[in-house]
Amino acid sequence: MEKVKIAILGFGNVGTGVWKILKENKKEIMKRSNYEIEVAKILVKDINKKRDIAISKEILTDNIDDIINDESIKIVVELIGGRGEAKQYMIRAMKAKKHIVTANKLVIANWSDELFKIAEEEKVLFYYEASVAGGIPIIREINESLTANRIQQIIGIINGTTNYILSKMTNDGIGFEEALKEAQEKGYAEADPTSDVDGYDAVYKLAIMASLSFGTKINHDAIYREGIRSISSLDIEYAKKFGYTIKLLAIAKEENSKLELRVHPTLIPSNHPMANVNDVFNAIMIKGNAVGELMLYGRGAGDLPTGSAVVGDIISILRNNVKPADISEVSEESNFKEIKKPEENEAEFYIRLNVKDRAGVLGDTAKIFGENNVSIISMTQDVSREDDVPLAFITHKSTEKNIRNSLEKIKSLENVNRVESIIRIESFN
Amino acid sequence: MEKVKIAILGFGNVGTGVWKILKENKKEIMKRSNYEIEVAKILVKDINKKRDIAISKEILTDNIDDIINDESIKIVVELIGGRGEAKQYMIRAMKAKKHIVTANKLVIANWSDELFKIAEEEKVLFYYEASVAGGIPIIREINESLTANRIQQIIGIINGTTNYILSKMTNDGIGFEEALKEAQEKGYAEADPTSDVDGYDAVYKLAIMASLSFGTKINHDAIYREGIRSISSLDIEYAKKFGYTIKLLAIAKEENSKLELRVHPTLIPSNHPMANVNDVFNAIMIKGNAVGELMLYGRGAGDLPTGSAVVGDIISILRNNVKPADISEVSEESNFKEIKKPEENEAEFYIRLNVKDRAGVLGDTAKIFGENNVSIISMTQDVSREDDVPLAFITHKSTEKNIRNSLEKIKSLENVNRVESIIRIESFN
Repeated sequence: MEKVKIAILGFGNVGTGVWKILKENKKEIMKRSNYEIEVAKILVKDINKKRDIAISKEILTDNIDDIINDESIKIVVELIGGRGEAKQYMIRAMKAKKHIVTANKLVIANWSDELFKIAEEEKVLFYYEASVAGGIPIIREINESLTANRIQQIIGIINGTTNYILSKMTNDGIGFEEALKEAQEKGYAEADPTSDVDGYDAVYKLAIMASLSFGTKINHDAIYREGIRSISSLDIEYAKKFGYTIKLLAIAKEENSKLELRVHPTLIPSNHPMANVNDVFNAIMIKGNAVGELMLYGRGAGDLPTGSAVVGDIISILRNNVKPADISEVSEESNFKEIKKPEENEAEFYIRLNVKDRAGVLGDTAKIFGENNVSIISMTQDVSREDDVPLAFITHKSTEKNIRNSLEKIKSLENVNRVESIIRIESFN
Repeated sequence: MEKVKIAILGFGNVGTGVWKILKENKKEIMKRSNYEIEVAKILVKDINKKRDIAISKEILTDNIDDIINDESIKIVVELIGGRGEAKQYMIRAMKAKKHIVTANKLVIANWSDELFKIAEEEKVLFYYEASVAGGIPIIREINESLTANRIQQIIGIINGTTNYILSKMTNDGIGFEEALKEAQEKGYAEADPTSDVDGYDAVYKLAIMASLSFGTKINHDAIYREGIRSISSLDIEYAKKFGYTIKLLAIAKEENSKLELRVHPTLIPSNHPMANVNDVFNAIMIKGNAVGELMLYGRGAGDLPTGSAVVGDIISILRNNVKPADISEVSEESNFKEIKKPEENEAEFYIRLNVKDRAGVLGDTAKIFGENNVSIISMTQDVSREDDVPLAFITHKSTEKNIRNSLEKIKSLENVNRVESIIRIESFN
């Protein structure tokens, strides 16, 4: 059997996962790829660092040139992450005629067009399945399985950290800060959790999926973003009363060539399969005009799940598989699609006010909603304290503009203390 | 753009779905396949039959030779179903150097090795994504996305008819006969529902998935099979009390090169994502040694979802994609795997007895379970009637043999009227 040499850039969590899989499943991988894969070089920062994995020091290098200049290396697996070096190394490797596999969402979301163009010119393959949702093969799904469809919607739980936090808050009744601390102790959240908790991570992944699905390059800055810091235990409890569960969703919809792109906490019906996606699991629901609703559920991070996607890509290159769809290619076709402004978006809403328990407060509030074309489906009120009463509503579909206008006026009512929460609802229609 | 001619055999539900998709999504399909697809011929039984779809009569033929002998036709899409003609037509088409796309689970489950061998010899491609679970791209998942994994388990809800019936029984509290009647009225169940209700349909699909996943040809006759006719409203109610939902599962597991293969009604935890798979939806959970648990959820039947898989396969052929894995190929490698006998299988069990409400009946029953190494997790009893009392148990993991031995003795206890139900539990561990 022919041998093929590969190099891995970065030997952290995912890098060691890839190493383990190549070793543990060697027999299966040989059978499926028709090659014996040899990891010839691994780029690390510190060659002498103590590692859990027994690995010959000759394989390790701290000099990228050792890899770029080695003509026997055919595939470079980029697992450094981040923006700077990773991108430059991939470009240099492609110019040295090496195929690329990467798990780097930042680089793909920012410079996919530039990178794919170079791959095209250099006639090398560029795979990036692991850049979105770890072990879930969503890129292949969009690029190869759903080719018969016009994709209409993507709705995903694509950040494991926030899903863990919201699951804990929902199932154990604890608050955001406590749940975040737990996530940090378990290694699911960083010391600075901004990227996950404030929705940036989900925004990058949504930009990649939406670009592929709608055939137009989407700038991640154009995606509306709201994190989960302001979600309170009370919201979770009230959502449950109304029959909903709160999840951080990444949503992309196309209607009449207009796109709706947003990442925010969302109430979803508790009997929908996505409501049972708990802990660090991810799930992505795609709606195509032929296939209808299709959902993928699995582990969105971790050494072995993400490694599964990376090694799958290596095998695809060796099997000389189809070239993955090229974001830059589609964006050149002048099929520009307008992105709707947030205030044009329509959704059902969950709204929680804090009011004084006085006769007329519900009537006054309802009147203002009505005047702004917002109609109410249900209402719940907890009258345990007289001057500090939660009053929550579920509305019919309304524009965000009408909701904001209503609340502007409701806020100034004498018996309304505050608007505490405004959370969108997704009913998967 | 180059044109390619294809022929469709059979113009029923799926055939018209394929026609609609090729028309409706023409622009997208051209872009993705780089071909303009022309349906040159459609094989039908009766050319003069009145159809809902406007279609030129010149395209229709009732003579397969018109298709086999037409050298300009490059791909044949087999949607006749059944065993006899379908298989022969596919063989003849391959011998005339035409690629094949089929949705025929019966033919694949029975003669895949023969058909794949001919495809190999004739150097044509043979695709069959639509043969399992309609619009859910499970074949591609196993063949291409999960190549880095050793697959350990497949657990699926892969029959829409039975899932509809069980969902109705669970959500509306109606009995099996009434739910079946509703399914028949909606066109979800045949007049003779045997194939679905007794588990045969699921057995064929499981044989195909397990053959691919475990790299060994699995004879569908070797799969243990139990249908849903005996599930009563009382079982569904009791399952709910214990925190479970009843689903018809198709289960394939490999442990130490031994296979467990079975289709039967199963209690699954109500907070598992599969418990919310309702109505005619399908879902398949795969466990791989790298990716962990991965679930696909979607529509397992219907004109457009199944058509989505068929047209996806046509596009894959046109993009000159990787050859799908070949069941015959793997089976030749003498990697025979032993299939466990049902009595060796281990599971947790739900057991419902009908007893007389006498002191001691619980003690006597529990004693016999204990003597046979069956330990009980929980118990519930409904003492509304004195001599006709349901008594239900959930057991720890036990062999089927120990369960059967216990019940043989319990049955003969003076105060036990009958053993009403024995249903396995799947906890997804």
